[in-house]
Amino acid sequence: MTVRFKLRPKDDTFFDYFTRAAQNLVKGTELLSELAVPGADVQSVSERLGDIEHDSDQITHELYNKINTSFITPFDREDIYRLGSQLDDVMDHLEATGNLVYLYGLTKMPALPREMLELIDVLDRQARVTAQAMPKLKTMKDLKEYWIECNRLENEGDRAYRMLLVRLFSGEYDALTVLKMKEVADELELATDAFEHVANTVETIAVKES
Amino acid sequence: MTVRFKLRPKDDTFFDYFTRAAQNLVKGTELLSELAVPGADVQSVSERLGDIEHDSDQITHELYNKINTSFITPFDREDIYRLGSQLDDVMDHLEATGNLVYLYGLTKMPALPREMLELIDVLDRQARVTAQAMPKLKTMKDLKEYWIECNRLENEGDRAYRMLLVRLFSGEYDALTVLKMKEVADELELATDAFEHVANTVETIAVKES
Amino acid sequence: MTVRFKLRPKDDTFFDYFTRAAQNLVKGTELLSELAVPGADVQSVSERLGDIEHDSDQITHELYNKINTSFITPFDREDIYRLGSQLDDVMDHLEATGNLVYLYGLTKMPALPREMLELIDVLDRQARVTAQAMPKLKTMKDLKEYWIECNRLENEGDRAYRMLLVRLFSGEYDALTVLKMKEVADELELATDAFEHVANTVETIAVKES
Repeated sequence: MTVRFKLRPKDDTFFDYFTRAAQNLVKGTELLSELAVPGADVQSVSERLGDIEHDSDQITHELYNKINTSFITPFDREDIYRLGSQLDDVMDHLEATGNLVYLYGLTKMPALPREMLELIDVLDRQARVTAQAMPKLKTMKDLKEYWIECNRLENEGDRAYRMLLVRLFSGEYDALTVLKMKEVADELELATDAFEHVANTVETIAVKES
Repeated sequence: MTVRFKLRPKDDTFFDYFTRAAQNLVKGTELLSELAVPGADVQSVSERLGDIEHDSDQITHELYNKINTSFITPFDREDIYRLGSQLDDVMDHLEATGNLVYLYGLTKMPALPREMLELIDVLDRQARVTAQAMPKLKTMKDLKEYWIECNRLENEGDRAYRMLLVRLFSGEYDALTVLKMKEVADELELATDAFEHVANTVETIAVKES
Repeated sequence: MTVRFKLRPKDDTFFDYFTRAAQNLVKGTELLSELAVPGADVQSVSERLGDIEHDSDQITHELYNKINTSFITPFDREDIYRLGSQLDDVMDHLEATGNLVYLYGLTKMPALPREMLELIDVLDRQARVTAQAMPKLKTMKDLKEYWIECNRLENEGDRAYRMLLVRLFSGEYDALTVLKMKEVADELELATDAFEHVANTVETIAVKES
């Protein structure tokens, strides 16, 4: 017979994993921001994104091991699992973005469209509020403003994404360039969504624990 | 120690939220149906969709507050949360559709493709069966025909979507128009999926409660 | 009052459903592999994929009935439900792939791009490891290597998908052919993702049961 106890441990390891994962996402969005600089070394950005994606995989792996070997966890195992997995998802989209810009040779163009840089800026801000929020999971205090801000940023990203597509489909670029930039735009938009999923999971956990 | 009681309250507020949210979706699909009329005022349709999306956000917000302040709920908190969030997702796709048709200026064409109007019709029927089903959550009776019909409609929408793409890629339109209509088609298809997700959650709740 | 017992039945029916569903997916990827042969009868492949998708729907339907009529289940109802639904999702993407290749008349081309055939090969290997893993759910032993391999294959598929897009956007094909092949590529990529979702659910179940 299993009965659910609300006994919670003092072990901080789980919060450290989430914080490290989120700090790694800040590194990721900082690398993407380098793409905004004309003449950026896109191959180098893409490779360094690959490196920190590898770091994220390592953190996620350690987190899963910790879940599997812990008798008690600070909140439901499934939620810890989901949160770790969703933080990892964000990194996958950041890495994919850099890789596509590189593979498609998009930086041979004079500059990336302004709306694309706006999307990268939104991601950078989402990464920062997420990294600030993760340590607060320990006390479950002051998290509400985080998920509200993260969702607000997602809406801002959504608008930038729509206007980016309007520009891409305006006739300014040839069809193949449109298709390439559309792929990059889609990854950026998935990354803003992925940050929102993290925020939604934090909200769900907070609702359960309150 | 938490033990799960199957004590259920008489409070009808939750069912009212779901019903209002679904009725709002009917307003949304009615607005999209206006796009089928040649010479439709697309800007006005898009703006009115923006207004009712705002109403949906408000309903979802009230629902979440109600979850957080209720001691007992008619079924699992997480399922109430998910159902509210999924009803809201449908609205996001309806609003996005109207907005894209407007932003891309697609109505300068003689008429939207027939398969696109079929998709809008499928959405309208999904909205109506959903709005009829929501009040039945109170008794959990006669819901099965709803989720079967909603899934059947999603299949119908899927076929219309595939045939729409065949038409878009047939050479009838220039590449940029194809890309714009493809975006609109994708939103419509996501909306039919989103209605199916609502139906799947209702089925999951019914399975648990039975 | 409901209290969760860890009493587990000897009934093997559930594992049979999962095994049959996964074996059906092997049939599906074998059919897709026929597309690699120049001069393949694409209409016939598409129709046979439609038939086995119908078989999958039938298996899923029987599984859901079994869940609803069973007093005890080998693991959480929701997880059984999710696993059944995710196996069904894979089939939907396999069927869609065959149908799109047929509807778009893509086989009038000399051959499908090499990277597309690589993606189909990845799917075939994912189907085989999944079919081998399903009977092991009964003992929950030796499943870890399955989900690791299935995730590794998804990564391999991801790389093939990216390189496929690089080829599609290289200028080798006209814009409409690019758009058609992109749709097929997306379905294949969704299918590799869907196999990964199955593996993730198996992992989640194993973590809970351990």
